[in-house]
Amino acid sequence: MLMNFTYEHLRQFTIDILKKIGCSDKDATIAADVLVSADLRGVDSHGVARLSGYVRLWEKGRINATPSIRVTYETPSTAVVDGDGGLGLVVAPFAMQVAIEKAKNAGTGWVSVKNSNHYGIAGYHAMMALEHDMIGISLTNASPLVSPTFSKERLLGTNPISVAIPAHEQPPFVADMATTTAANGKLEILQRKNLEAPLGWVQDPQGVPTTDANGVKKGGALLPLGGDRDHGSHKGYALGAIVDIFSAVLSGANYGPWVPPFVAFLEPDPNPVGEGLGHFFGAMRVDAFRPADEFKGHMDTWISRFRSATPVEGQEKVLIPGDPERELEAIRRKEGIPLLQPVIEDLTQLGEKLGVSFS
Amino acid sequence: MLMNFTYEHLRQFTIDILKKIGCSDKDATIAADVLVSADLRGVDSHGVARLSGYVRLWEKGRINATPSIRVTYETPSTAVVDGDGGLGLVVAPFAMQVAIEKAKNAGTGWVSVKNSNHYGIAGYHAMMALEHDMIGISLTNASPLVSPTFSKERLLGTNPISVAIPAHEQPPFVADMATTTAANGKLEILQRKNLEAPLGWVQDPQGVPTTDANGVKKGGALLPLGGDRDHGSHKGYALGAIVDIFSAVLSGANYGPWVPPFVAFLEPDPNPVGEGLGHFFGAMRVDAFRPADEFKGHMDTWISRFRSATPVEGQEKVLIPGDPERELEAIRRKEGIPLLQPVIEDLTQLGEKLGVSFS
Repeated sequence: MLMNFTYEHLRQFTIDILKKIGCSDKDATIAADVLVSADLRGVDSHGVARLSGYVRLWEKGRINATPSIRVTYETPSTAVVDGDGGLGLVVAPFAMQVAIEKAKNAGTGWVSVKNSNHYGIAGYHAMMALEHDMIGISLTNASPLVSPTFSKERLLGTNPISVAIPAHEQPPFVADMATTTAANGKLEILQRKNLEAPLGWVQDPQGVPTTDANGVKKGGALLPLGGDRDHGSHKGYALGAIVDIFSAVLSGANYGPWVPPFVAFLEPDPNPVGEGLGHFFGAMRVDAFRPADEFKGHMDTWISRFRSATPVEGQEKVLIPGDPERELEAIRRKEGIPLLQPVIEDLTQLGEKLGVSFS
Repeated sequence: MLMNFTYEHLRQFTIDILKKIGCSDKDATIAADVLVSADLRGVDSHGVARLSGYVRLWEKGRINATPSIRVTYETPSTAVVDGDGGLGLVVAPFAMQVAIEKAKNAGTGWVSVKNSNHYGIAGYHAMMALEHDMIGISLTNASPLVSPTFSKERLLGTNPISVAIPAHEQPPFVADMATTTAANGKLEILQRKNLEAPLGWVQDPQGVPTTDANGVKKGGALLPLGGDRDHGSHKGYALGAIVDIFSAVLSGANYGPWVPPFVAFLEPDPNPVGEGLGHFFGAMRVDAFRPADEFKGHMDTWISRFRSATPVEGQEKVLIPGDPERELEAIRRKEGIPLLQPVIEDLTQLGEKLGVSFS
């Protein structure tokens, strides 16, 4: 039930759709680059499968297609960006660029963002730093689907952390991970195959661990990285909390259970504690610490040593963060991006509604 | 088999011992404050139980009791500190202070440290930022005891992450966690009680998960947070790797398997890739983003909301990172710090050797 589409096709379709809802050429192009990079890198849940979700939020008046994104406060190494309700896919690259410019002058740059929306994959924004010989950091909060350790209530999003670090001969180190045991996209795969989830991924509405892959839809919650207290879920909870606070309490966005839902059929809290959702970006010039060549040479040594570690039986090799996504991107650039039939139908209908042909 | 000692008693004994090995009054006092704060906060594995370990490293010439700690490179928001082989317990507060001073001017300060040693609990250093209305961050690499996902070899330390965030009426948010499922100290408790470890904490020398609480001593390894691939151990591995790279590849310290062992009977690698072990510190002025009162008011809201979440059955309440340590500190300041008989004997012998009475 899979059909392959070229990267260029999906990117152009996304641009055309976003222009139809009023985005400028430039914004539509930036947003499409971010969105479709998820499909390229294998994070299918965050790519074109979400395009109609963004459009539905725009229809509800919850996304501003022509935002005036601006820096509202700054110091030599920090800034706050107001996204003016724009697509996170556009607000985030703007804010990351501010962090990069700050780092050029001050050594590092740190930007907290309010009044934004979902920003695609965290890794895209962190990786923007690489070409400048900088380390990039990208965090975002998200709609509450996760229960802290011992909590029956859902209070946090899957709040991802991405860190991108340049090397020389070796490809860069790129971590990009939800602070939950498993991302929601992995549950969707199990749901489609009618399989159970491992214990430690999900709890039921009473807060009891369950193997039901539909447990979150039934009112349960995703679990923080670690899964239960004995396996360190208080650490995953703390990481998700730090992402929430850096992204939203620093900037003035909504945090915790107040983060507006991504799905258009759920209304945001009528008594918000801030504006929109929040992100946090960092850029550190490696030569603000030591000469870039030296740093990147040692990163090569680091990566080579870890990649050549003796693997456990049954495994081919030890991976470096970013390896699987990069390998998949190489394949998908050549062979195309496989989409499921329901996604193809959804995009076809979206195109019909807005007067853009998907086929 | 426990006997209680006052905080002041353990602190003074530590000061006296460190002066006997040649530390200045000032350095001995700083180091004792850091070391014994671990006992106060319940991280017994990182407190006075380690004092004789530090002395053995000094006897081997691997700790410099009179270091000339200095900034070797800097930009407005960054610095590299050379610890000159000093006690990490002294080098780390020096470096964190540099980060705080940078933040006063540039909004944030980021300091990577080389040529240091083990620095006690990560949380002590992060919490130094709180009185300045700053967010504090503290990372360190450590002797290799942890196997990356799919690796038979031990390549990383327990590489902790601490983040301390000020609030107003509420006590601060203080996360302080190893990037492994469980810290080594938790295994030691199980060893003493002759209990098994949960699966997901340890693997055996072949890389097979084991419940043997002595598995690491037998040549196995601690496992990254997550425990196995299905439960996200690649995320714990990535976090430990980021800590290693920020602490050591940025500064010029040893990283990965080259980090010198804490135990004096194991020799450091004869072909090091850097100097000593490494740390990384950050300080962010909250008013580099928004007025401090506003930020701290919202932190109160955040903390109250999470603490009042409906708990799952069988649990009293949802905890905020830092709650358990703070509650234990209040008790131990009043009732004293309980030490195990072997620790008391070890400290008594140490005192006899150096001419300081422990009793």
